[in-house]
Amino acid sequence: MVPYKNKAWKEEMAVRLDFNHVMARFMGEHHGVFDGEIESLLPEAKEIHNDIKEKRARGDLPFMDLPDQDVKPVLELAKQLKKRCESFVVLGIGGSALGNIAIHGALNHPFYNELSKTGRKRAPRIYVLDNVDPDHLAGLLDILDLKKTCFNVITKSGGTAETMANFLVCQKALIDALGREAHGDRIVVTTDATKGNLKRVADREGYPCLVIPDGVGGRFSVLTPVGLLSAALAGVNIRELLAGASFMERRCRKMKVWENPAYFNAAVHHILNTKRGKHISVMMPYSNALYGVADWYRQLWAESLGKRRSLDGREIFAGQTPVKALGTTDQHSQIQLYVEGPNDKVVTFLAVEGYGRKMEIPKSYEEMEGIAYLGGHTLEGLIQAEQRATEYALTHHRRPNLTLTLKAINPFSLGQLFMLYEIQTVFSGGLYRINPLDQPGVEDGKVATYALMGRNGYESQKEALGAAKPKDDKYVLAL
Amino acid sequence: MVPYKNKAWKEEMAVRLDFNHVMARFMGEHHGVFDGEIESLLPEAKEIHNDIKEKRARGDLPFMDLPDQDVKPVLELAKQLKKRCESFVVLGIGGSALGNIAIHGALNHPFYNELSKTGRKRAPRIYVLDNVDPDHLAGLLDILDLKKTCFNVITKSGGTAETMANFLVCQKALIDALGREAHGDRIVVTTDATKGNLKRVADREGYPCLVIPDGVGGRFSVLTPVGLLSAALAGVNIRELLAGASFMERRCRKMKVWENPAYFNAAVHHILNTKRGKHISVMMPYSNALYGVADWYRQLWAESLGKRRSLDGREIFAGQTPVKALGTTDQHSQIQLYVEGPNDKVVTFLAVEGYGRKMEIPKSYEEMEGIAYLGGHTLEGLIQAEQRATEYALTHHRRPNLTLTLKAINPFSLGQLFMLYEIQTVFSGGLYRINPLDQPGVEDGKVATYALMGRNGYESQKEALGAAKPKDDKYVLAL
Repeated sequence: MVPYKNKAWKEEMAVRLDFNHVMARFMGEHHGVFDGEIESLLPEAKEIHNDIKEKRARGDLPFMDLPDQDVKPVLELAKQLKKRCESFVVLGIGGSALGNIAIHGALNHPFYNELSKTGRKRAPRIYVLDNVDPDHLAGLLDILDLKKTCFNVITKSGGTAETMANFLVCQKALIDALGREAHGDRIVVTTDATKGNLKRVADREGYPCLVIPDGVGGRFSVLTPVGLLSAALAGVNIRELLAGASFMERRCRKMKVWENPAYFNAAVHHILNTKRGKHISVMMPYSNALYGVADWYRQLWAESLGKRRSLDGREIFAGQTPVKALGTTDQHSQIQLYVEGPNDKVVTFLAVEGYGRKMEIPKSYEEMEGIAYLGGHTLEGLIQAEQRATEYALTHHRRPNLTLTLKAINPFSLGQLFMLYEIQTVFSGGLYRINPLDQPGVEDGKVATYALMGRNGYESQKEALGAAKPKDDKYVLAL
Repeated sequence: MVPYKNKAWKEEMAVRLDFNHVMARFMGEHHGVFDGEIESLLPEAKEIHNDIKEKRARGDLPFMDLPDQDVKPVLELAKQLKKRCESFVVLGIGGSALGNIAIHGALNHPFYNELSKTGRKRAPRIYVLDNVDPDHLAGLLDILDLKKTCFNVITKSGGTAETMANFLVCQKALIDALGREAHGDRIVVTTDATKGNLKRVADREGYPCLVIPDGVGGRFSVLTPVGLLSAALAGVNIRELLAGASFMERRCRKMKVWENPAYFNAAVHHILNTKRGKHISVMMPYSNALYGVADWYRQLWAESLGKRRSLDGREIFAGQTPVKALGTTDQHSQIQLYVEGPNDKVVTFLAVEGYGRKMEIPKSYEEMEGIAYLGGHTLEGLIQAEQRATEYALTHHRRPNLTLTLKAINPFSLGQLFMLYEIQTVFSGGLYRINPLDQPGVEDGKVATYALMGRNGYESQKEALGAAKPKDDKYVLAL
């Protein structure tokens, strides 16, 4: 969406993080962070820093090395697919969908799919199917021309129930439309290099495969082929995306918390959460394009840090609840609560210094005071004023907030954002003393689903579900 | 989306609220509600109930009477507009946008706007512009054919900055495309009957006007022309929407909390928030179509109950933070946190008994155990099993949750939902002893925006902003 000039990237790469309004100087002792609290974290930070370095050296944090990957297989495949399809459907869920959605939202035209139909099309329409809602999938099939559609099935394990169910439905639809033989080059698989059912299916059917590297978990996988293939297809410069991530990864190598943006942001959030009762972390971009980034962050923060047990086995029920909000839109929905309700949040504004398009507000009714003040400004000026005004209102009410400003929204700055938050999350795991890379809490639900679906081997769980405490009709109101 | 048969409405109207998993019987004493706690609220509930009745009789709660309105002006205007436009753009924000988005999401085809272009079009495409993001508005103008586009400008006060800025931009674009004379029948105004700048503009330009009744605040206005006009244009049966609301309004007249779904839900949420530390209210529909309803609820709950002062002036910082989540999608993003993180949430599942479309999962790889169990089921069966499995997992970890089940998604049941939550919110205001109808906390931000935009009369505030405590560069990290 925003024209990104490769040669000018050094000027456009700036990201700025302003922590003033989380500090005690502005927030006071009950809601702000003291310099001394950051200082007192330093010995711990040093340990965590060294731990991260060691893990990385052992190959246990491969997401940090993703900027160095060879993207030729992705670009090559994208080039071939472009010839075959006018629609491209990603079948994935969670980490296999949110990165794709974030990239497309940030870097493509806001009405990209509709624009594609008006004749300016140089790339396929992109759809991300990340639910098993029958109305939604049936609706999608209504509008697709299956003869000109390719699917990208993404699951690391090769067994995610939702993704595999959608795959089975779409595969059959494709075969019905094209025949068994011809359908084979319309499905691309992104999964583990060797393991899992999806890999077996791909080998049998001859689907092209892209690999999710070992040890990169779903929520850290946006910069693997998971997120890169659909991005490349839509014309996003994925080398720049990786260059931004690489730049940020190098920027976040410093041990000193005060100079490392990922560590500093992690430290501030940890202190606010554990010592100031800020249970909620709101990410509020002032840009529709960045709303998907807030949703991506929501998974990263929730799934990584929401943990019952610490590494030494104590019950700690850690985690901050991430919330996505959109400026200015949610000023008319959530700001009343943020300003006057419980002081239990830290808000991160994502601000934009230069939007891609200029829109002037005409001077149309100069005699009407309530409208006239708008005339002669730009929409950019208005949305930026509203961001500063909301920052002011929160600060005035001692609600801690920080502002991350992008000079512009482009592949480079988006890559920076992804890497910043991924490293911040891993460092936060150290501060909470939990494992940020696992997700043991989702097992119960998965097992219960298998049991309810009658999967072999889950018979005893099905019995257990059946034997659960019966509900009382007294507490059921039929309307 | 879901075929709605008028004659069968009595069978389809069922909504069921299941509170079992918020009660102490399942949740235990630390996280569940005791019958006795509900009982002890009864005297207070009686007072609130009588207060609501009195206010209503005085005309102070006009949203409850909206089902009885005459919808002919809306239907008549919709009929005319249909002839004039192939795209219809709502310009509104907050309560002037969220209801529209909720209705279209719930009742239209999931790819309604794209479908409209494939030739099956019987109604205009609908866009809701609820931000002043220049990239977004410029992008929308890229895809609109202004000669075939109508705009609906919605603001009660007639002075909402974002809406008026967008209006001025779009009005100029229309005039440039059509000429001053001809543009007049492409803009419809929805505002106060007599007051405000937008009304003055409409009178001068001769724009058709629809009225937002006195005393109906933005977040309670979905069933006024605010939400009804675009719904009618898209072919939604707005009489059925109102019939559902009317049915629910009558269902919620009972004084007894145990029999009144709005009161019971309010009481449960209030007890969980104020006595069990559930600061967060998650609404999690298992249906993409209902995601917009969760966003609509988010404004209603946050802006109504997030209040610094009680009616008698005490500082209470009331309010629960509403969060929207989507099943099954957010199982792969948020459930780890909901199950293992802090036990500070109450989750409302919106379940659907009958989806509109049937999608069978084919039996394709019966020898692969990890896939085979899916074959022969429907997507409906899978999504419903996942909802029950998630309910089970939360319950197992003593995370309070309740399930609101719709027999089907249609105008009638959607109208029921709107009215249920609106009455619940007003009753909750009584329990918190706050005014659920005002939003004093947004003033600071508005005033600061006016000051930053240089509006006359806000010079002193501009000075005050300039004199605010200076930021310290020490806390700004440039990346």
